[in-house]
Amino acid sequence: MSLKDSKIRAQIRLAPESFLGPDVIADINQHGLDKKRRGFLRQGLVAATSGTLGSVAASLSTNVFGATDGDPAILEKQVWQTTLGKNVATMPYGTPSIYEANLIRRESPGLTRVSAASVAFTPLQGLFGIITPNGLHFERQHQGWYNIDPNVHRLMINGLVKNSRVFTMSDLMRLPSVSRIHFIECGANTGLEWGNVAVPTVQYTHGMLSCCEFTGVPLSLLLDVCGADLKKGKYLLAEGGDGSGMTRTINLDSALKDSIVAWGMNGEMLRPENGFPLRLVVPGVQGVSWVKWLRRLEVGDMRYGTKDEAVHYNDLMPDGLARQYTSIQECKSVITTPSGGQQLLEKGFYNVTGLAWSGRGKIKRVDVSVDGGNNWRTARLETPVLTKALTRFNIDWTWDGAPAILLSRAIDETGYVQPTIKMLRDVRGTRSIYHNNAIQAWKIDSNGEVSNVQVG
Amino acid sequence: MSLKDSKIRAQIRLAPESFLGPDVIADINQHGLDKKRRGFLRQGLVAATSGTLGSVAASLSTNVFGATDGDPAILEKQVWQTTLGKNVATMPYGTPSIYEANLIRRESPGLTRVSAASVAFTPLQGLFGIITPNGLHFERQHQGWYNIDPNVHRLMINGLVKNSRVFTMSDLMRLPSVSRIHFIECGANTGLEWGNVAVPTVQYTHGMLSCCEFTGVPLSLLLDVCGADLKKGKYLLAEGGDGSGMTRTINLDSALKDSIVAWGMNGEMLRPENGFPLRLVVPGVQGVSWVKWLRRLEVGDMRYGTKDEAVHYNDLMPDGLARQYTSIQECKSVITTPSGGQQLLEKGFYNVTGLAWSGRGKIKRVDVSVDGGNNWRTARLETPVLTKALTRFNIDWTWDGAPAILLSRAIDETGYVQPTIKMLRDVRGTRSIYHNNAIQAWKIDSNGEVSNVQVG
Repeated sequence: MSLKDSKIRAQIRLAPESFLGPDVIADINQHGLDKKRRGFLRQGLVAATSGTLGSVAASLSTNVFGATDGDPAILEKQVWQTTLGKNVATMPYGTPSIYEANLIRRESPGLTRVSAASVAFTPLQGLFGIITPNGLHFERQHQGWYNIDPNVHRLMINGLVKNSRVFTMSDLMRLPSVSRIHFIECGANTGLEWGNVAVPTVQYTHGMLSCCEFTGVPLSLLLDVCGADLKKGKYLLAEGGDGSGMTRTINLDSALKDSIVAWGMNGEMLRPENGFPLRLVVPGVQGVSWVKWLRRLEVGDMRYGTKDEAVHYNDLMPDGLARQYTSIQECKSVITTPSGGQQLLEKGFYNVTGLAWSGRGKIKRVDVSVDGGNNWRTARLETPVLTKALTRFNIDWTWDGAPAILLSRAIDETGYVQPTIKMLRDVRGTRSIYHNNAIQAWKIDSNGEVSNVQVG
Repeated sequence: MSLKDSKIRAQIRLAPESFLGPDVIADINQHGLDKKRRGFLRQGLVAATSGTLGSVAASLSTNVFGATDGDPAILEKQVWQTTLGKNVATMPYGTPSIYEANLIRRESPGLTRVSAASVAFTPLQGLFGIITPNGLHFERQHQGWYNIDPNVHRLMINGLVKNSRVFTMSDLMRLPSVSRIHFIECGANTGLEWGNVAVPTVQYTHGMLSCCEFTGVPLSLLLDVCGADLKKGKYLLAEGGDGSGMTRTINLDSALKDSIVAWGMNGEMLRPENGFPLRLVVPGVQGVSWVKWLRRLEVGDMRYGTKDEAVHYNDLMPDGLARQYTSIQECKSVITTPSGGQQLLEKGFYNVTGLAWSGRGKIKRVDVSVDGGNNWRTARLETPVLTKALTRFNIDWTWDGAPAILLSRAIDETGYVQPTIKMLRDVRGTRSIYHNNAIQAWKIDSNGEVSNVQVG
């Protein structure tokens, strides 16, 4: 979050329903700046420039520090210091503060024909750390979501197995379980950048990304229980219980290592829109393969070529052929603050922060540039750094008020370096929709407005 | 979760408002068993006993596996497979499934005089992994909670500092931040066990316990910024913004190592009932010191002896003197499933699971006994195992239908071993209310009912 946190919230509130609409920039220019709020803060900042700083603070701009204790109006407004608050369990299941009402999942109606087969993006610009709150986990629905009765839901395992079986939720939840933190990213995340559509905010450029602690039974145990033939069996067909008939081929070699048949998500049961009561967790693999409302797993000896892998989630190459079954999400990163649609209202110190992840393992390093890629500095990585999970990075930056271009570049433990969009286009052309892990650039104008640009 | 997940939910729904009420057992006996549901599951289980198991499964009881695919009624009920679901972003901020409606924070009205100064317990019996969803984070209010306007909230730092300062939220959120996963436990958690009050469920025995990823500015940086005198300054007074005038003395030596002035909680802003927009995070220290709605930090050269440490959160010893300033939460663990109020409806395999934590560092090992402590087996620890965070443990158990007593015993990286209640009473007597980290025992009767008993 930048100095103007409430300012950023305001811009989130004013973000247009669809970033494809023509009124985006006009809308942001018109409402982007809250004069009253700005004046209030500026006053505080001017007052703050007096006084010396401590040793660590010496490296920070003096205008970081507010000093509004002289403002009597503030004390008058702090009524909670002299009044009785609300009872415990007023909300048996709690909800965010009313002041966070604008930090929500947002659909982009222009993106698909109907809202039942669309996307609701996670507001990365307003989140911290690596855990995505379940209420803000992104949604990608193919035929809408359901309130499935867990007492009626079943999972069948068949195909190349000694004993085909049907499991109730109670059967599954009685088995040995594991809990692991992993990211999930839709293969179409950041897809519009292929066409150089300057999507205005990080919620829409990278918001098909979340990270949770998932709990369930290891896939390997379930297959063992059913006596799967792992000599002939090389692939798994995962089938969802929704009306879209979602089916995906899973590579068994990798899935046996860390895939989970999961019911838990950040400590509680999966949310309905994320597959309650059961979904497949395939760490490092694109989200479409994390089949929701999982109802069947079939062990097979060849890829299944289902509609969702024959027609969708492929990359059309320059030669007219398509890359198929490219399921691993390659190493990628993005700066979430400052990011598109936000505005820096003052010069001085900012904590630049963002997320990095790799479908192939742990993040080794994240470099950040504030001059469009001429110079790079290594960012601090928050711990724990986990395999196939989001990693939060932070780096100090003092903005001098001049135009700047911010980039982040991630490197994973395999040594793979996140590429530029040009490097990707040289190989993949411009007709791809999926699997764009290019370096994201945010341009900061002299007035502090942050916008989405493509560099290199 | 045990085989009878929905059964457990039912018992949670039927749990009395206060476990101190006389009608508890009657209530559970009357409503605890859903005959229809039981019959349905039994049918499934009988059908399941046919068929061989895989190698891993060989160690499991055959009645783990349901086989209800023969039930045509089930397929008829799965209407979502042929209907259109709900649109994306139907819930811009999502909520749990309607089938999880009973998994909520619960107050125990008998525990305190008024609900504005009371506790709402986390339903540990229904949670997985180590992350506590924000909506279920426990509450301990001293004068109720508030919807504080973050634009009006201020943090003052004064006392033995070169420059007293007042920070706005925007000032703080612009500073370098860290994100770390830590547990928080109220010093009064499990307090009623001192008096051998057999609290019926783990929600009420251990539910003043949660674990989140917290984000904020390191306390050490803030004090450095203000030029704190760390030669004279040995203690910190933390003051809350609520009407209770909550104030606590913080030991500066340890607080400088890992304390955080935090605004983030599991990726989003703190929840109002947990201190939005600002609270102190003091890893390993009892929850009362994690001052909510933090408005002031004063650096001092002696303990402050405030009302909340002079009168409360002390341990009255047999000699009539009180242990004071005992703030570290010692190594502790508890089995969450199976636990009090649940019932095992069948013999056979169960995944016994629970939580372990230590205010002094990482959990090294958790041992589990199913015979009241005569024999112990070492449980599996879920990764990552983090310092001063919850650690999830799992262990296999096949119940033979005979009465059993389940215990868990945690050992932390300092070598400290979780004590029995007898060991604690030998030193502390019986008049303590706080800081009970004794081994918890759950008794399983031959009919599978689980209850809270004290052993050793």
